Amino acid sequence: MVGAGQLARMTQQAAIALGVELRVLAGSRDESAAKVVVDTRLGDHRDLDDLLALAKGCDVVTFDHEHVPTELIESLGVPARPGAAALVHAQDKRVMRERLTALGVPCPRWSSTDFTAPVVLKAVRGGYDGRGVWVARTQAEVDEVVSHGIDLIAEEIVPFERELAVLVARSPHGQGVAYPVVETVQEDGICVEVIAPAPGLDPELAAEAQRIALTIAEELGVTGLLAVEMFQTATGLLVNELAMRPHNSGHWTIEGARTSQFEQHLRAVLDLPLGSPEMAAPVVVMANLLGGPEPDVYSRYEHVMANDPGIKIHFYGKDVRPGRKIGHVTALGDDLDEVRARARHAVTCLRGPLGV
Amino acid sequence: MVGAGQLARMTQQAAIALGVELRVLAGSRDESAAKVVVDTRLGDHRDLDDLLALAKGCDVVTFDHEHVPTELIESLGVPARPGAAALVHAQDKRVMRERLTALGVPCPRWSSTDFTAPVVLKAVRGGYDGRGVWVARTQAEVDEVVSHGIDLIAEEIVPFERELAVLVARSPHGQGVAYPVVETVQEDGICVEVIAPAPGLDPELAAEAQRIALTIAEELGVTGLLAVEMFQTATGLLVNELAMRPHNSGHWTIEGARTSQFEQHLRAVLDLPLGSPEMAAPVVVMANLLGGPEPDVYSRYEHVMANDPGIKIHFYGKDVRPGRKIGHVTALGDDLDEVRARARHAVTCLRGPLGV
Repeated sequence: MVGAGQLARMTQQAAIALGVELRVLAGSRDESAAKVVVDTRLGDHRDLDDLLALAKGCDVVTFDHEHVPTELIESLGVPARPGAAALVHAQDKRVMRERLTALGVPCPRWSSTDFTAPVVLKAVRGGYDGRGVWVARTQAEVDEVVSHGIDLIAEEIVPFERELAVLVARSPHGQGVAYPVVETVQEDGICVEVIAPAPGLDPELAAEAQRIALTIAEELGVTGLLAVEMFQTATGLLVNELAMRPHNSGHWTIEGARTSQFEQHLRAVLDLPLGSPEMAAPVVVMANLLGGPEPDVYSRYEHVMANDPGIKIHFYGKDVRPGRKIGHVTALGDDLDEVRARARHAVTCLRGPLGV
Repeated sequence: MVGAGQLARMTQQAAIALGVELRVLAGSRDESAAKVVVDTRLGDHRDLDDLLALAKGCDVVTFDHEHVPTELIESLGVPARPGAAALVHAQDKRVMRERLTALGVPCPRWSSTDFTAPVVLKAVRGGYDGRGVWVARTQAEVDEVVSHGIDLIAEEIVPFERELAVLVARSPHGQGVAYPVVETVQEDGICVEVIAPAPGLDPELAAEAQRIALTIAEELGVTGLLAVEMFQTATGLLVNELAMRPHNSGHWTIEGARTSQFEQHLRAVLDLPLGSPEMAAPVVVMANLLGGPEPDVYSRYEHVMANDPGIKIHFYGKDVRPGRKIGHVTALGDDLDEVRARARHAVTCLRGPLGV
């Protein structure tokens, strides 16, 4: 796995159970997964020699982020999953929009040339977690963003009711599975909460969302996981973003589904039969733990554990910095309000008194 | 953690989520946990210097087996959990029987001096997985076992209906939790199947079993996990064996309980609040995967996954040898017969055509 962040770290937990020997490429020994993967190689994910050294002797190469140049991916001597032809759609927003539009997948109106405010401007490459996205309500704001010379596309500001995400897996055999559609709650462009299944979602709309995601996976030739972020609007669904790897919107599956997204990704990229996406509880809520002003978050988990013996805490082994994703919690149960309150209470407590 | 077998390996999965930095003492790099724990130290668990080197800088020392000499345990400079005063009861069957008898815990009739057949002879120290236990039905068989000069105790051959196990955790704070009572199915002295909860068990008897286990944990001062193996007889429960560590009878908790035994053990020995032992499904069956005559068990898991997308497979990263525990599977569901059949089918298939 290229990359050694929390996604690779949690993949290692699944790899241990499957008896899969995971090797990761890390930038340093301090990275999240480097701390828990014995076969950690140090190197640069943009360097062909480092990638070749990583790939040598592996059955397959996969990724914990989307930043590996696609021109390097097909030269590794072993299959890369997802492959470059698919991955480019998760790297390049213009390519993604062109392709989805051609496929008839519902998208926000978008343009490469018309940047008339109000508009959302997106960096074609390199955006992540709200970075590379600007909501420009006036033409002056548009001009300011454009002045930096970044390659941009423009999208309409979608008047959405809420945001949904669909996680699907597809194997080289062509087997596909879809997890239940979830609601994602964002603050400042960062996902703070995921609710599975999306509360009150019309079953037909849920099926439509899963169908869209499976179609994209099939048509783009994705192998491994595909997360499709969508807007739910008064008139239907619009696809917002794609990710081709385990995704924050799927962390709830670790305890909340029969097959965690991390196990599923390994099974998919290794061309093993896919696992059941069935939920393990009626309601599952995942809340991200973002670093607050106090660095010693670890000392507080004692209180969270004492308060809620059923809460599941996940730490990523990272130093705490304000706003940084350093872990998540998952609550499971029967009642949405109660489960959601438990998850929120846990992260509020972990973040510390000033981080509320 | 002293020892690097599958228990340490699965403990590492829990440690990753908790952000606990696990260090293990392994005899070689080939051991199950050594393959997945970055901070693996090589050494001998009977060597004080190796133990001291392991313990240095740790918050607490714990164990994946019971073979560390108790006289070394209290000299490590950091707390050992369980401590020597408790652990001796899991190492020395005579000490265990004397103590349980003194506590009024129901045990099989036993003796250190009367070896009249028919009788079960047990090595006082070093027994494990059926080794060190002899069922002697004639006096000639008794004489044969005694002739080897091993320190032995004798126990009645208990006419049991079935075997049960209770897993409890106790923290230094004194907090205790008990998991649901399970039925364990043994073949040739080795556990092959665990059914949670024990089917049809009278709730009063289940509560009595949990009370016995919690009492033993409290009275012996156990910190960490305690597994109590019991016989269910026509007249009640009898305690068979004790183990003070994660236990084979608790592997079902990884997916089958809100808190896995491995997470629970870490929480207990770190004196963190204990987690909920609530079951995650009505019925959970764990079946051990014992090596069969064919070494390439790994190639068969594709078929098992295809046949049952909900089955959970755990491999221990060990070479296959006939009879060796190399992994386990867990099935969850609502119907006992169906769940049990799924677990059995999976291990039968994994073991290979001649291993049925």
